Amino acid sequence: MDIATIIGIVGGLALIITAIIMESPLSAFFNVPGLAVVVGGTVMATLIMQRLPVVLGAMKVAMNAFFDKAEQHGKIIEQIIELSQQSRQGGMLALENVQIENHYLARGVRMAVDGIETHEIVNTLRIESDSLVKRHETGHKIFKFMGATAPAMGMIGTLIGLVQMLQSLSDPAAIGPAMAVALLTTFYGAVLAFLIFNPIAEKLEDRTKHEEALLEIVIHGVEGISKGLNQSVLEDKLVAFLSPGKRKKD
Amino acid sequence: MDIATIIGIVGGLALIITAIIMESPLSAFFNVPGLAVVVGGTVMATLIMQRLPVVLGAMKVAMNAFFDKAEQHGKIIEQIIELSQQSRQGGMLALENVQIENHYLARGVRMAVDGIETHEIVNTLRIESDSLVKRHETGHKIFKFMGATAPAMGMIGTLIGLVQMLQSLSDPAAIGPAMAVALLTTFYGAVLAFLIFNPIAEKLEDRTKHEEALLEIVIHGVEGISKGLNQSVLEDKLVAFLSPGKRKKD
Amino acid sequence: MDIATIIGIVGGLALIITAIIMESPLSAFFNVPGLAVVVGGTVMATLIMQRLPVVLGAMKVAMNAFFDKAEQHGKIIEQIIELSQQSRQGGMLALENVQIENHYLARGVRMAVDGIETHEIVNTLRIESDSLVKRHETGHKIFKFMGATAPAMGMIGTLIGLVQMLQSLSDPAAIGPAMAVALLTTFYGAVLAFLIFNPIAEKLEDRTKHEEALLEIVIHGVEGISKGLNQSVLEDKLVAFLSPGKRKKD
Amino acid sequence: MDIATIIGIVGGLALIITAIIMESPLSAFFNVPGLAVVVGGTVMATLIMQRLPVVLGAMKVAMNAFFDKAEQHGKIIEQIIELSQQSRQGGMLALENVQIENHYLARGVRMAVDGIETHEIVNTLRIESDSLVKRHETGHKIFKFMGATAPAMGMIGTLIGLVQMLQSLSDPAAIGPAMAVALLTTFYGAVLAFLIFNPIAEKLEDRTKHEEALLEIVIHGVEGISKGLNQSVLEDKLVAFLSPGKRKKD
Amino acid sequence: MDIATIIGIVGGLALIITAIIMESPLSAFFNVPGLAVVVGGTVMATLIMQRLPVVLGAMKVAMNAFFDKAEQHGKIIEQIIELSQQSRQGGMLALENVQIENHYLARGVRMAVDGIETHEIVNTLRIESDSLVKRHETGHKIFKFMGATAPAMGMIGTLIGLVQMLQSLSDPAAIGPAMAVALLTTFYGAVLAFLIFNPIAEKLEDRTKHEEALLEIVIHGVEGISKGLNQSVLEDKLVAFLSPGKRKKD
Repeated sequence: MDIATIIGIVGGLALIITAIIMESPLSAFFNVPGLAVVVGGTVMATLIMQRLPVVLGAMKVAMNAFFDKAEQHGKIIEQIIELSQQSRQGGMLALENVQIENHYLARGVRMAVDGIETHEIVNTLRIESDSLVKRHETGHKIFKFMGATAPAMGMIGTLIGLVQMLQSLSDPAAIGPAMAVALLTTFYGAVLAFLIFNPIAEKLEDRTKHEEALLEIVIHGVEGISKGLNQSVLEDKLVAFLSPGKRKKD
Repeated sequence: MDIATIIGIVGGLALIITAIIMESPLSAFFNVPGLAVVVGGTVMATLIMQRLPVVLGAMKVAMNAFFDKAEQHGKIIEQIIELSQQSRQGGMLALENVQIENHYLARGVRMAVDGIETHEIVNTLRIESDSLVKRHETGHKIFKFMGATAPAMGMIGTLIGLVQMLQSLSDPAAIGPAMAVALLTTFYGAVLAFLIFNPIAEKLEDRTKHEEALLEIVIHGVEGISKGLNQSVLEDKLVAFLSPGKRKKD
Repeated sequence: MDIATIIGIVGGLALIITAIIMESPLSAFFNVPGLAVVVGGTVMATLIMQRLPVVLGAMKVAMNAFFDKAEQHGKIIEQIIELSQQSRQGGMLALENVQIENHYLARGVRMAVDGIETHEIVNTLRIESDSLVKRHETGHKIFKFMGATAPAMGMIGTLIGLVQMLQSLSDPAAIGPAMAVALLTTFYGAVLAFLIFNPIAEKLEDRTKHEEALLEIVIHGVEGISKGLNQSVLEDKLVAFLSPGKRKKD
Repeated sequence: MDIATIIGIVGGLALIITAIIMESPLSAFFNVPGLAVVVGGTVMATLIMQRLPVVLGAMKVAMNAFFDKAEQHGKIIEQIIELSQQSRQGGMLALENVQIENHYLARGVRMAVDGIETHEIVNTLRIESDSLVKRHETGHKIFKFMGATAPAMGMIGTLIGLVQMLQSLSDPAAIGPAMAVALLTTFYGAVLAFLIFNPIAEKLEDRTKHEEALLEIVIHGVEGISKGLNQSVLEDKLVAFLSPGKRKKD
Repeated sequence: MDIATIIGIVGGLALIITAIIMESPLSAFFNVPGLAVVVGGTVMATLIMQRLPVVLGAMKVAMNAFFDKAEQHGKIIEQIIELSQQSRQGGMLALENVQIENHYLARGVRMAVDGIETHEIVNTLRIESDSLVKRHETGHKIFKFMGATAPAMGMIGTLIGLVQMLQSLSDPAAIGPAMAVALLTTFYGAVLAFLIFNPIAEKLEDRTKHEEALLEIVIHGVEGISKGLNQSVLEDKLVAFLSPGKRKKD
């Protein structure tokens, strides 16, 4: 798992909690109805926006993004080069029983072994790529939506508190604490949005780009294998996907 | 119908109402002129923005989005595979009397049976897809516009209340309640926008993507049938539209 | 003319005025210098942004959008089908003296009659479409700019009022009314932007899409006529532009 | 020069100054440290964002946009038609010594005279067009950046003033004037952004579109000349770039 | 190094510090817990958003953007023209031992020398270009994210301070200073975002465009060399990438 994510969430909350307890008890920032309005309101708005299984699916994808190790682009390039070598030496059938971990690469190689035309293989893999991007986008949009909705729910909570406070100004001593409680929902909304939802939304978007680039490598690789492209040309092409620092030789 | 939507709207309002009645009577948050400014102002701005029949049509589309069951991508793929089998066994005419529920698939198959060239069929279905997306976009934009306008109308209402309050500061005891009433329109605008209009706008956008993907499947499927594409190649291609978890065998 | 537009503008202003006069005289919301800053400032900024004739042209286009009746997509499709029938029966020259109302359709048919190659006709009509979209976009952007500038000018006016009020706090009784006046420009800016400029900008954008779709129909239609496309194929294609509810037979 | 621009800037400032001096001396709105923070801060941020020569270049481009007369699309079309006539009568070499004012048209014609293939000429002019758009975009982005930065610098100035005022609340009489001064930077930032930077950014963007359209005309024109396209077809095509009101005959 | 960047950062901070010390000691604007919340919170959110090595890589890229001298487009064009001359005189093998500084140009020329087909070379260089743009975009997005997060963290800090102040209003004399401290985090967030993160994000985006344009020149150049394009045509094409002022002869 990506250790930085844990450091980020835990560290961010620790910083805020430390800033609070330096001046006041933490309990002063804890308000159950306020939390219910912000968290509950955000969840409810999300349920309107998207069907429940999709929301749960997005949560699972987000979890995967944190716990699954991202496949390295370098490794898959090595494997493609190797497959290309085997197929040029032993013909396409030499690839029939090769064990390939990456689902998309396995799929493309199987199609090539089956003798399907190169452009149909490429079309199929491109559909895979487009539909993977769309599936991931759904999850990314859910978190972005939550990041936009949480501060709004915070503002709604604060407005409720302000209206109630203003309607009963009889006791001046109560104004301050009442307003403090009212502001708490804005605080909750901001923390949720800017420390949790927005960074996760960005992470998912970045992860999608990573997977899309991986599939792009697979598409170019399978196309090269299927067409029997000269190996050094294929290698030149695939290596171009890597940042200069990650290239072994060039 | 999508049960989560009802839970979302009812639950969201229940949360806000509960938060209110814990501290004050609900009636304190009910202000008819304020509601009229926010709801009425949003409706009026929407009437300027779009012709009445289009607005009503968008409402109907939104209703459909909530009540109609979305067609499953998996099912239509199965049907296309079946149609492909029939046409390869009995020729294109074998499809003449097949009952097809999906409007676009039926249309494409009829054109194939009529012997129209594949690329003209694909062109026609692509026009269908583009014009469906544009029609849906209109509805989506109306709700997005209302989601942006409602908070603005809330602010306009609050400004009216503030100006009136500030012009007659003679009675200090009246300031609080007057300001409370003024803030109510901002509250109405925020609830309408963030709990109703924005989530619905997002839902419509998502629904459009769902239908667009369905049409993309239909286009690839009809193209395959019309060209007499090898069945396993067609299946490989169409299955690529599904998320890995929804694929039967692969 | 589109009656909803008048209802929208008149109704929206009526709602706001009613909300005002329920609590205070309307004159309390009327401030000439404030109006001058907001309206004048917005006009001046628009003059910097765009040359005068273009601004006036955009106003005229906006007027047209309100008063001209939008051409129906269904009608033009019927006419294209009819022209296609005539040309297939009597040759292209049969179209020489047909009266065609739509400027772009007339142009395309004339080019087809003149024997110009199909792809050059399509290119020319596509240039027409692109340049119509760009011309309309100019108008649309002017109103969008005004919708963004008016609230800013309102804020500038309010800042002027606040600074003046704060500099002479000697008479506490004058603070309230002075601040009320200061807030009026923010009020003007919000009403102008959200009830007038933004809805009109959206309407113009929608109108542009309507005309673009019309031209797309014309392009496909003229292409079909010029190529002598089979009539039922042409009809299938053009009908795909209509929403299912507006199709006569299918 | 475009007289409306001067009217806009001078008139906008005059309006604001008039609104000020109706109630207070203009000097009350003049604060040197505040101006330094807003103007200086915006300039400094711009220097970080872009290299100095590029910023200065953008200023020059902006000046040009105000003082240079925009070339008329109609005129260049006439000239292209004329060149086309000459080349069809006297061969391409007849264009060798024709004086052509527009740089891009001259370049394309010279290439055609040199016998370079049409598609290479079109490629070259398209590179010219793309790189002109990119150069202009740089300037446009600088002004947009300044329009976003100026209000932020205004807010920073106000925050400085507010913090200083709040730290020494001992003299209540000083609060008002101190806060007035603090608000001045927000005022400066808003005026700079909404009356100067944003309208200029929009003007530059519009100007870029104008030049891009001009180059599009040149590209189609040179392509027609080089291919020896039928003159009436070329004229039909080029005239499509003009708005209907500006076409002489059609 | 680009001297303007140092002037910008140092000058911007100097301006703000000067504005502060004119009225109060600088220490009044120094608050360690506040700084920790804003800087620490922004760093933590960034760690959630992106893996640590990528963040560090982005910092390195940003440093390079400031310290590396951007390669001049003019120079590389000259070198390409020269290579083209050599290859037309001595055949492609004449380029075998030429020393080429630019990594991408060297790569393309080596592929041309190796006799790889032009379209494969172009494909490979285009992959290089796309993947360079994506790598740079990652860095650019990190700074943009920090520019959006810093003000939010500032607001969170201010909310903490406000809630604490409001909960203990017993001592009126403490309100002002407490609120001043609360506002400091908003101040920190605004300075970090608008004087540091946002300008750097824009600079990185601009730098990416610069490199992308350079690679576009290299692609067109290598294509020309590999195809043995006429030299004056190649020169015409490449010179089109330069702004008119930077062209030697034309």
